[in-house]
Amino acid sequence: MKIAIDAMGGDHAPKEIVLGALQAVKQFDDLTITLIGDESNITPYTDKHPSLEIIHTDEKITSDDEPVKAVRRKKNASLVLMANEVKAGRADACISAGNTGALMSAGLFVVGRIKGIERPALSPTLPTVNGDGFLLLDVGANVDAKPQHLQQYGLMGSIYMEKVRQVKNPRVGLLNVGTEDGKGNDLTKKTFDLLQELPINFIGNVEARDLLDGVADVVVTDGFSGNVALKTIEGTALMMFSMIKDTFMKNTKTKLAAALVKSDLKGLKGKLDYSEYGGAALFGLAAPVIKAHGSSNQQAIFSAIRQTRDIVDNDVIGKIEAEVKTLQRVNEGE
Amino acid sequence: MKIAIDAMGGDHAPKEIVLGALQAVKQFDDLTITLIGDESNITPYTDKHPSLEIIHTDEKITSDDEPVKAVRRKKNASLVLMANEVKAGRADACISAGNTGALMSAGLFVVGRIKGIERPALSPTLPTVNGDGFLLLDVGANVDAKPQHLQQYGLMGSIYMEKVRQVKNPRVGLLNVGTEDGKGNDLTKKTFDLLQELPINFIGNVEARDLLDGVADVVVTDGFSGNVALKTIEGTALMMFSMIKDTFMKNTKTKLAAALVKSDLKGLKGKLDYSEYGGAALFGLAAPVIKAHGSSNQQAIFSAIRQTRDIVDNDVIGKIEAEVKTLQRVNEGE
Repeated sequence: MKIAIDAMGGDHAPKEIVLGALQAVKQFDDLTITLIGDESNITPYTDKHPSLEIIHTDEKITSDDEPVKAVRRKKNASLVLMANEVKAGRADACISAGNTGALMSAGLFVVGRIKGIERPALSPTLPTVNGDGFLLLDVGANVDAKPQHLQQYGLMGSIYMEKVRQVKNPRVGLLNVGTEDGKGNDLTKKTFDLLQELPINFIGNVEARDLLDGVADVVVTDGFSGNVALKTIEGTALMMFSMIKDTFMKNTKTKLAAALVKSDLKGLKGKLDYSEYGGAALFGLAAPVIKAHGSSNQQAIFSAIRQTRDIVDNDVIGKIEAEVKTLQRVNEGE
Repeated sequence: MKIAIDAMGGDHAPKEIVLGALQAVKQFDDLTITLIGDESNITPYTDKHPSLEIIHTDEKITSDDEPVKAVRRKKNASLVLMANEVKAGRADACISAGNTGALMSAGLFVVGRIKGIERPALSPTLPTVNGDGFLLLDVGANVDAKPQHLQQYGLMGSIYMEKVRQVKNPRVGLLNVGTEDGKGNDLTKKTFDLLQELPINFIGNVEARDLLDGVADVVVTDGFSGNVALKTIEGTALMMFSMIKDTFMKNTKTKLAAALVKSDLKGLKGKLDYSEYGGAALFGLAAPVIKAHGSSNQQAIFSAIRQTRDIVDNDVIGKIEAEVKTLQRVNEGE
């Protein structure tokens, strides 16, 4: 198996990206990784491992670049060359921790969609209290979603959770303003009916309040609301950690308390650490395209590679393709 | 000034509702409160205060009732009689901690809208790190919002924050998937332009990640996304408090730490306590209609009454009416 990685994307590129790749090829014998980026900055970390290849380029896309323009104009950017490797069949999948919009554009314009999928969905796995996590899709690839898009998200998410995360009969919920049937806006009401038609375990509407409690294994929503939910979780958690930290720094007594629970609270932060769950897949593309978190360290990159390997190994793309074909036949037969 | 209160709505009705009302009339000499509900269960807590009046009824709307049907059929429910008091001009404003949907229905069908306002918005004040709080609207009164609805939310929110919360030149932000101009879905792109036309301090797009940091004084969004944001904040905060509690209960060492910071952490929880900020107003109705939190205790009810009194005193409704009229003239003149 070969995975192409944008070595220049993310806050800690290329060092942490390359170290994560090195860790992965050491662990998985069947894996070769192509690192794309500035060779002189990559080689110091490769340990000359025979399963790490490098494609050199000076050009890269920054987080400030306008995504669509950048992908069209910077033809030699590491992120674009990475997508080319997949398009040309020289890699089975690709990973970048760089500009999310640019990765979506490169996925759409270079890698291309699965036939029958109208809009890909950006799909991170978020933490839950019990540690299982849940897949939230879409979180921003498609901010003007239609009911049939959300129907396809339900199908794709269910396949991923079953095949890669080994969740038996994954519970698929629709994010809504109430749990009762018939609740919601025009989009969710129509989506509700479409999700009921699928051969998945659709459990109905779920509320944002219950997401982190693990109310569903897959939560379907439009890219706008999903983005709001994701960023609200991040913002609330960060604010609370910072307030707790301030509380512990107040005086000698609280500082003593802090010393006593420090390691336990670190475990708590670890539970909420996205990097443990790998990257966010762009489901609906013709090959696995994975967005690693911008702040990814070596461990986060390693997790993303392991996850990508599982997606390839379990032929998730082929299974999505087959299910979409069946769904279309059913819809046309009606 | 007279305020009508649904004494039977909320988890702790009628006791905490009546005690909150009693606290308010004791503090504010100019205030009379009409309590609507089961007289025999109300009188034990009124202390026979002369500024507390009672309208007796046996009927009430429960949280399980279907809102629109309940308001139409249960004509003698405490919540409906409360709205009638406002409609008939016998009360200046009303408050309920009961069924949110039913209160919105009673507001719309009984109290009625301000002329020119198409859709009222449910508008809670949420906590921020610095303690100032911000107004989020809408959180669910209107889940299929149009750009012109959101424009009116910006106007109404700005007036409220300026007149009642005494925020000078309140910063009004549009909840979006990115902070750059031009970001977002069809709804937010169109709304962005409309908000720029208003005589308010529109600061552009804001992200959900920055809400609790106090990025804006007023945050405008459609009822679906606002509901998701609100419930995600609640869910994330509750989950974290429960995880922190578990961490502190782990062993003797952590229990000792807990004892040392207990009071400080309580202060932290207080900072995130919605009840301090009063209830959520339904802006756009012809009189102040306030939804107090379902779990309201005496203090939360008192806060909601004080807030309602400020809305009446500052003629927020009259000011919204005047501004909407001006806006319509401008739009027609174009």
